[in-house]
Amino acid sequence: MTDVRLALTGFGNVGRGVAEILRQNGDRYFDAYGLRLVLTGVADRGGAAVSRAGLLPADLIAAKQEHGTVAGVAGGHAGLAGDAFLDAAGAQVLLEGASTNFTDAEPGWSYAQGALRRGMDVVLASKGALVLHFDELMQGARQGGRLVRYSATIGAPLPILEIADRALIGVRILELQGIVNATANQILSLMSEGATYEEGVLAAQEAGIAETDPTLDVDGWDAAAKAVILARALFGAPLALDDVERQGIRGISTPDLENAKQAGQTYKLIARVVRDGNSVRATVSPERRPHSDPLGRLRGQEMGVVFKTDLLGDVTTTVEGTGGPSTALTVLRDVVNLARERGWTS
Amino acid sequence: MTDVRLALTGFGNVGRGVAEILRQNGDRYFDAYGLRLVLTGVADRGGAAVSRAGLLPADLIAAKQEHGTVAGVAGGHAGLAGDAFLDAAGAQVLLEGASTNFTDAEPGWSYAQGALRRGMDVVLASKGALVLHFDELMQGARQGGRLVRYSATIGAPLPILEIADRALIGVRILELQGIVNATANQILSLMSEGATYEEGVLAAQEAGIAETDPTLDVDGWDAAAKAVILARALFGAPLALDDVERQGIRGISTPDLENAKQAGQTYKLIARVVRDGNSVRATVSPERRPHSDPLGRLRGQEMGVVFKTDLLGDVTTTVEGTGGPSTALTVLRDVVNLARERGWTS
Repeated sequence: MTDVRLALTGFGNVGRGVAEILRQNGDRYFDAYGLRLVLTGVADRGGAAVSRAGLLPADLIAAKQEHGTVAGVAGGHAGLAGDAFLDAAGAQVLLEGASTNFTDAEPGWSYAQGALRRGMDVVLASKGALVLHFDELMQGARQGGRLVRYSATIGAPLPILEIADRALIGVRILELQGIVNATANQILSLMSEGATYEEGVLAAQEAGIAETDPTLDVDGWDAAAKAVILARALFGAPLALDDVERQGIRGISTPDLENAKQAGQTYKLIARVVRDGNSVRATVSPERRPHSDPLGRLRGQEMGVVFKTDLLGDVTTTVEGTGGPSTALTVLRDVVNLARERGWTS
Repeated sequence: MTDVRLALTGFGNVGRGVAEILRQNGDRYFDAYGLRLVLTGVADRGGAAVSRAGLLPADLIAAKQEHGTVAGVAGGHAGLAGDAFLDAAGAQVLLEGASTNFTDAEPGWSYAQGALRRGMDVVLASKGALVLHFDELMQGARQGGRLVRYSATIGAPLPILEIADRALIGVRILELQGIVNATANQILSLMSEGATYEEGVLAAQEAGIAETDPTLDVDGWDAAAKAVILARALFGAPLALDDVERQGIRGISTPDLENAKQAGQTYKLIARVVRDGNSVRATVSPERRPHSDPLGRLRGQEMGVVFKTDLLGDVTTTVEGTGGPSTALTVLRDVVNLARERGWTS
């Protein structure tokens, strides 16, 4: 039995999801891997809760609900953040799940750096630091003998990195095609059933899966960020967000959808990362696909990727579940796989 | 750089495929993992070739072609087999790919036992020993601190075990549904395009994917054997081949196919392994599926599985390529993943 002390930043869908899973199913990690996953610190915008003995997930969830911040737990610290939080938490692994941006990648970037400086391993659920500082992040980790994992950033819970790492061995990936943004796919699905773009966005917002400003999803920024991370992870290609040819779903009209339907097809927002001689290029754009296509058949919040390989042809994986719980599950699977690499599992 | 000495039994599609891959793409394993995969012994029905310094894959392929056996290489040994072969090969890992049966699982079962007794790890491409002697095999390996891998036996190159092991963490698998026999799927695809059953079988035989006696594939024995292995691997359930409710594809008539077609559906031979309270049951039978279904859309030699899980909903993976080269690639991916666990990779 090994205790793994976790510091968690952000207590939105992902962070609260992690607490929910540990509360309801924490024993699964113990039973299967001999790991006791213990939250020793959680920070959100209002402050932080820390306990070397371990915070109770139920207390964190209640404090967030009642006080709007995890700092509302007994002994919580309003305003505690950054390096002071990391020092107080005394964790082995940082789970970085705070909201971020593609301008300065904060607060995730500082948290990740602070964790590596303290000899912690890092599991990322936020994309900013990966999109803006991939090389620096990985170099920092390598120099300190630390591990960085980020399965949750590229369309969780899709097993993209796991398949690439464990199954596409001896095989060259030529191209990756994917539906990696569930919100855009949900909106397109509604539109293909007759909704206008505006109605589709509204319905996605009411279902809690689209933000008030849906730009990141509908204009393809989120998918482009994932393409950048995948280009790094699978091809080692240093693409920037601006390198991705990006077209969102706003421009798709009712006649477009009608034409597609009559041809037995449907529009999907497809991210592609393509090896092209010695270079790698990435695109995000709507494409017409037949319903029997591995990606064309995905509806609602389903996501999927197709690896195009040289020796095995197409290898596909798709998932049904998306959103908070599944992203949190993906974060915790990174923790387990990291713990295996560290030899902590039994 | 680490040399991994491999002993290979069987030089049919799988064995020759391994030699072809090492000949053409052996450098990939070295470049990516620091592994030099060296065949120090290869046995087929006619005898064996052994060399502690490493056999040349091209020589083995040529000997098989010219003499009908790898024993035809210079210095080859007609009749060398069994324990004497394993002793002569002096390998670290056995790749067991000889044709086998579900009556006595030979020669694979003896080879696997002999390898474990000699302190070798084992990668299986043949199913017999797993179907008939799973517990004994795994206990023997555990007692000797040895590893046994068998990804290639359950619908190679499907990444079933890799997804289960690395991505379905913290998640309970409730059921597995799959198309795991490419030959049956090929025949059904031809039948759905208008061929009779007999024409479908003949075409599959002419394409080299169905045996002269297609019983194992069309009567569902092969799929049932895979279901037995999957029941062990994913649910720890000790099913025997006879425990699988099994119905093949012979009984599907032209009117059946016509009715399905008119409903926008198609017949697929589906293997299911289902958790049912405290027990696990397995079935193989033809099912009608719509074309947009994750398994219904698979044509020709495509295969796929759907994991039904409690917290993530459905997780699906499908593959296009099957047959010799892809099975051989799967055997070698087991070698790499085993080498990682042993700490041989760099």
